[in-house]
Amino acid sequence: MAKVFGHIEGHPVGSQYQRRRELHDAGVHAPLMAGIHGNSHEGADSIVVSGGYGDDEDHGSVIIYTGHGGQEKGRQVSDQDINHPGNAGLVRSELEGNLVRVIRGAGGDPDHSPASGFRYDGLFRVESHHSKIGVHGYRIWQFRLITADVPEEEDVTPFHGDMADEPAARRSVTVQRVVRKSAVTQLVKQLHKGTCQMCSQVLMVPGDSYYSEGAHIQAVGYPYNSPDVPENVLCLCPNCHVLFDYGARYLTDDLRIIDGITHHEIGKLRTHHKHKIEPRFVQHHRARWVSAD
Amino acid sequence: MAKVFGHIEGHPVGSQYQRRRELHDAGVHAPLMAGIHGNSHEGADSIVVSGGYGDDEDHGSVIIYTGHGGQEKGRQVSDQDINHPGNAGLVRSELEGNLVRVIRGAGGDPDHSPASGFRYDGLFRVESHHSKIGVHGYRIWQFRLITADVPEEEDVTPFHGDMADEPAARRSVTVQRVVRKSAVTQLVKQLHKGTCQMCSQVLMVPGDSYYSEGAHIQAVGYPYNSPDVPENVLCLCPNCHVLFDYGARYLTDDLRIIDGITHHEIGKLRTHHKHKIEPRFVQHHRARWVSAD
Repeated sequence: MAKVFGHIEGHPVGSQYQRRRELHDAGVHAPLMAGIHGNSHEGADSIVVSGGYGDDEDHGSVIIYTGHGGQEKGRQVSDQDINHPGNAGLVRSELEGNLVRVIRGAGGDPDHSPASGFRYDGLFRVESHHSKIGVHGYRIWQFRLITADVPEEEDVTPFHGDMADEPAARRSVTVQRVVRKSAVTQLVKQLHKGTCQMCSQVLMVPGDSYYSEGAHIQAVGYPYNSPDVPENVLCLCPNCHVLFDYGARYLTDDLRIIDGITHHEIGKLRTHHKHKIEPRFVQHHRARWVSAD
Repeated sequence: MAKVFGHIEGHPVGSQYQRRRELHDAGVHAPLMAGIHGNSHEGADSIVVSGGYGDDEDHGSVIIYTGHGGQEKGRQVSDQDINHPGNAGLVRSELEGNLVRVIRGAGGDPDHSPASGFRYDGLFRVESHHSKIGVHGYRIWQFRLITADVPEEEDVTPFHGDMADEPAARRSVTVQRVVRKSAVTQLVKQLHKGTCQMCSQVLMVPGDSYYSEGAHIQAVGYPYNSPDVPENVLCLCPNCHVLFDYGARYLTDDLRIIDGITHHEIGKLRTHHKHKIEPRFVQHHRARWVSAD
């Protein structure tokens, strides 16, 4: 079924439904069984949050939502796969800034869920995703969803030729990729003279300056809160930074670079004798994307 | 002279000076004549804002500061060069998130400048830079500076081995590179299936998803405020996006790709028959970086 992003006409936030069939008929959440409506090509447009995963967290405007798979009779019995269409759909929605309809069911967190049936609780954006070993001992994928409190007319901009020349900010749902800069990342970049430690590129721009990014190995954002020290920072070009942050690149303890999709070695990290990398950060990053050693 | 970033001890915001020599002796602004203390290697650590450029704008917490060069007897008589050490220093400080000491002199905007002599007005960050033809008919470079109201202990993080494992946010000056995502950029990326229109790369990440960025040709940020329409958007990888945004790549009207440093042609933009590019946006981007046609 085609994905339809944004609110569904006639179904305002707060609408109540007794059964999944009604959500299906309304187009608020199309599948009758699956919790996620999505695939890697189009993204995910809606999810149902109704408990059932011991690792879910519902804080109202922030939801830690466990992805699909690996369950039998309500228990986690195997690892989840990030390439499952539902999970991949949430990754795609994160990368595209798609807003996801959140429907809460009666089985969820009692503070935030309806007493019975289902309730449409509005649009959320997927801020980030990560993987961890869940309470049942298997790898799960989790998506951090944040309420997207934007006026309805901004949710979807149709693709046609007659768009007025309005400033961009008025009609787009804006999502940001954040690249942090600090004195620590600056010093790491200076040691490497802006050379990417993975692909050896130096991006030069007018003004006789290189552009490179300080990439934290153990992520500084939620939920890791890692230290901003040189031992936890790599000097990377923006492309390798994106690939590293989304698990398409990871490192072995002896700093070989592994492709996160094929798991083949593709090179060795450039190093500098004044810039030590601490294995615990490399291990932490790796544990998010592949089985722990 | 070495660059010293941040506040100078014993010289709080609001300190007054009669002559440039006193600023030099204090280490608040090292050069006796130049308005910018900087170079492409270290960045710029201080500037003097004291009028003298007809294109300067001082709004208090936001300053549009015209770069160095091309003046004779207070009049612009030739183009400014982004590679001049002072200008390149401000580019470097922008890319690194260095904070710049701003000293205002009596010749500047009467609402924000001291009645006589000079006054240290605190730390600003360089948010962006752009080029335009100034009031005297020559190309000038302008830097948008925004007050950086951060506690003093956060200004400089020294580089030494005994850093405590504090969460990154507590000790870094954070500057963000903003990548906007909207329904328009998403549709352009879908047409190109995430393939970079400049270098043809597709960055794949786990979850069967590509990562690409929608790059506005005529910038949407200050001072351009351009439309968010497909005709003004390119599908680029993050590296080519950075190079394009900082003028290391520009386009001819027939969509050849030009290196912004050597001004040599390096390829042709990938196109899609459903994705038209409007020449006026290409011309606008190009005018920021090279002489107008």
